[in-house]
Amino acid sequence: MNSIASDSYNVYLEELAEAAILQHIQVKKYSKVFVLVDENTKKYCLPKFLEFAGDAIDETLEISSGEENKTIQTCTEVWRELSNLGADRQSLLINLGGGVLTDLGGFVASTFKRGIDFINIPTTLLSMVDASIGGKTGVDFGSLKNQIGVINQPQMVLIFPKLLETLDKRQLTSGFAEMLKHGLIKDQLYWENLRNLTEFANSDCIKKSIAIKNEVVMEDPTEKGIRKILNYGHTLGHAIESYFLKNPEKSTLLHGEAIAVGMILEGYLSHELKGLSMLSLEDIKTTFLNYFKKVDFTEEDIRIIIDLLKHDKKNTHGDVNFVLLQEIGSAVLDVKVPTELFEKAFAYYKQ
Amino acid sequence: MNSIASDSYNVYLEELAEAAILQHIQVKKYSKVFVLVDENTKKYCLPKFLEFAGDAIDETLEISSGEENKTIQTCTEVWRELSNLGADRQSLLINLGGGVLTDLGGFVASTFKRGIDFINIPTTLLSMVDASIGGKTGVDFGSLKNQIGVINQPQMVLIFPKLLETLDKRQLTSGFAEMLKHGLIKDQLYWENLRNLTEFANSDCIKKSIAIKNEVVMEDPTEKGIRKILNYGHTLGHAIESYFLKNPEKSTLLHGEAIAVGMILEGYLSHELKGLSMLSLEDIKTTFLNYFKKVDFTEEDIRIIIDLLKHDKKNTHGDVNFVLLQEIGSAVLDVKVPTELFEKAFAYYKQ
Repeated sequence: MNSIASDSYNVYLEELAEAAILQHIQVKKYSKVFVLVDENTKKYCLPKFLEFAGDAIDETLEISSGEENKTIQTCTEVWRELSNLGADRQSLLINLGGGVLTDLGGFVASTFKRGIDFINIPTTLLSMVDASIGGKTGVDFGSLKNQIGVINQPQMVLIFPKLLETLDKRQLTSGFAEMLKHGLIKDQLYWENLRNLTEFANSDCIKKSIAIKNEVVMEDPTEKGIRKILNYGHTLGHAIESYFLKNPEKSTLLHGEAIAVGMILEGYLSHELKGLSMLSLEDIKTTFLNYFKKVDFTEEDIRIIIDLLKHDKKNTHGDVNFVLLQEIGSAVLDVKVPTELFEKAFAYYKQ
Repeated sequence: MNSIASDSYNVYLEELAEAAILQHIQVKKYSKVFVLVDENTKKYCLPKFLEFAGDAIDETLEISSGEENKTIQTCTEVWRELSNLGADRQSLLINLGGGVLTDLGGFVASTFKRGIDFINIPTTLLSMVDASIGGKTGVDFGSLKNQIGVINQPQMVLIFPKLLETLDKRQLTSGFAEMLKHGLIKDQLYWENLRNLTEFANSDCIKKSIAIKNEVVMEDPTEKGIRKILNYGHTLGHAIESYFLKNPEKSTLLHGEAIAVGMILEGYLSHELKGLSMLSLEDIKTTFLNYFKKVDFTEEDIRIIIDLLKHDKKNTHGDVNFVLLQEIGSAVLDVKVPTELFEKAFAYYKQ
């Protein structure tokens, strides 16, 4: 069946998704239905959405795409528009976009009049298998990613793999990194299947990834424990992503490209500290380098990234905690890693 | 016992409150403890708080008092301060102030890094018996009160009636209006007791009011149904409050003063539509006019207030819904009121 039950909402795919949202809007008798888009999803996705849902939609709101617009300022503009257009507590906001848009739109809805209903329709592979699932909403604040937000679940998430047709290959591959992560942390067989995939917009795999993420999130929605395993590859990955973003000499790495490096590096740490076999480690490295071009790191880069990591995490009682793998498909939480291992991990990545 | 159990948190009074917060901070091992004050509570309440809790507090943050500062802009300043001072997800924010401060501080905490713990220490009678209880947090947006916010419960609420000593009589009386409301909607005997009270900072009555509000909120935290009974007197009361606020020729009415009028007017509607006896209606009118000076309304005032009410509520499907009383101690929800009754209600108030 093309639906995945979550604690408080459902994820629907393809035709079922079309029927589900139309029925939901009818049953809930919303006073007004709003769709939030950016200039890209307005052009490429909104027409497809309106084809079947046009009659149910009252207003379209537009924001500018890009992480630089994921701010409280943008929220203020959307709140104002909602107010001006007469949105009330019985209104619905549909977020049609990638991770930036669903994160921001979810926060706007969760805080407008102390919370109105919202529905996510992710339009990138990354947001389908990751950002739109799990109820994390929010915006950046200064240089701090997702600093302001709440955890609140949408009424439903709709997945239309056909929306991926207009996405370029690099964006698709970036999303695929998160899917590979789902295999690594939870399901060896799924990892084996993914490892040889060439067509990323694969409904069955998207479904499987969502099911894994959902299972983890349902067990621990507020990330007190097990949900942290979703951060595999992200501790070093985020530091790398931030460094490349801030450094004008570097070309920007997409999120998936950065965590792909992070997953190799943290694979090495897993081998050193948690007994991940050399065979599995080599498998991880080969697989990621098969999809993601090797990134060049100078000694200087590595030094700064490690500093950044120590600094970024200094506020959580001064420790650098990692999610590591015992084996492929099985992760462990809260492993404290001696910082001298970081350089060795980079050396392994480069060799 | 000086504590009232709620669904997810407790309300503690006096000495027990002191012990409870110190123990809580110790057990939770917060990375940092912040106190939010305004210029008034910094002067009058913070010293008393620090007397017993000084050792447990790391940082004090200050905002400007007043409804005009209950904005996203002020939130941004507090979020920035928290970031700069190294607050992380294991930090605690203690809100020491009246309703504006606990509403805003609760929202800041609920959205900082997707939610950190917070504790409310209300310093006005109004916030003790109303604003700080029930988890409504938020800020105003443009001219719209509490437009942006979330419902999220504090870790605990601490009540120190001695903080009321520095409050002027008018502020105290304003808070007392909400206590009278608790009697009217839920407990006839409590109403009888309050009716003759002269000293408002009465621990037993504060406790009783909190217990009534808590009971209602626990049954319906997100205000889908029964929680609406807390709005008794507020539909007309809010319209009156807004009108007096916007009209430069009128002196401002405090919240309690406006809803005191609202409760008489809605008492009249209750008599007309829900069989509230004339004896009870007269009792309500006499009691409120005993504590609150009669407000002058011209015919013009009344016309504008009624227009304002129709306009304000137009977005909830166009109906004006009221909470009315069947008898003292028993309220009914969602009563649609023909607008021609409003003028008659004012006529009754004036006579």
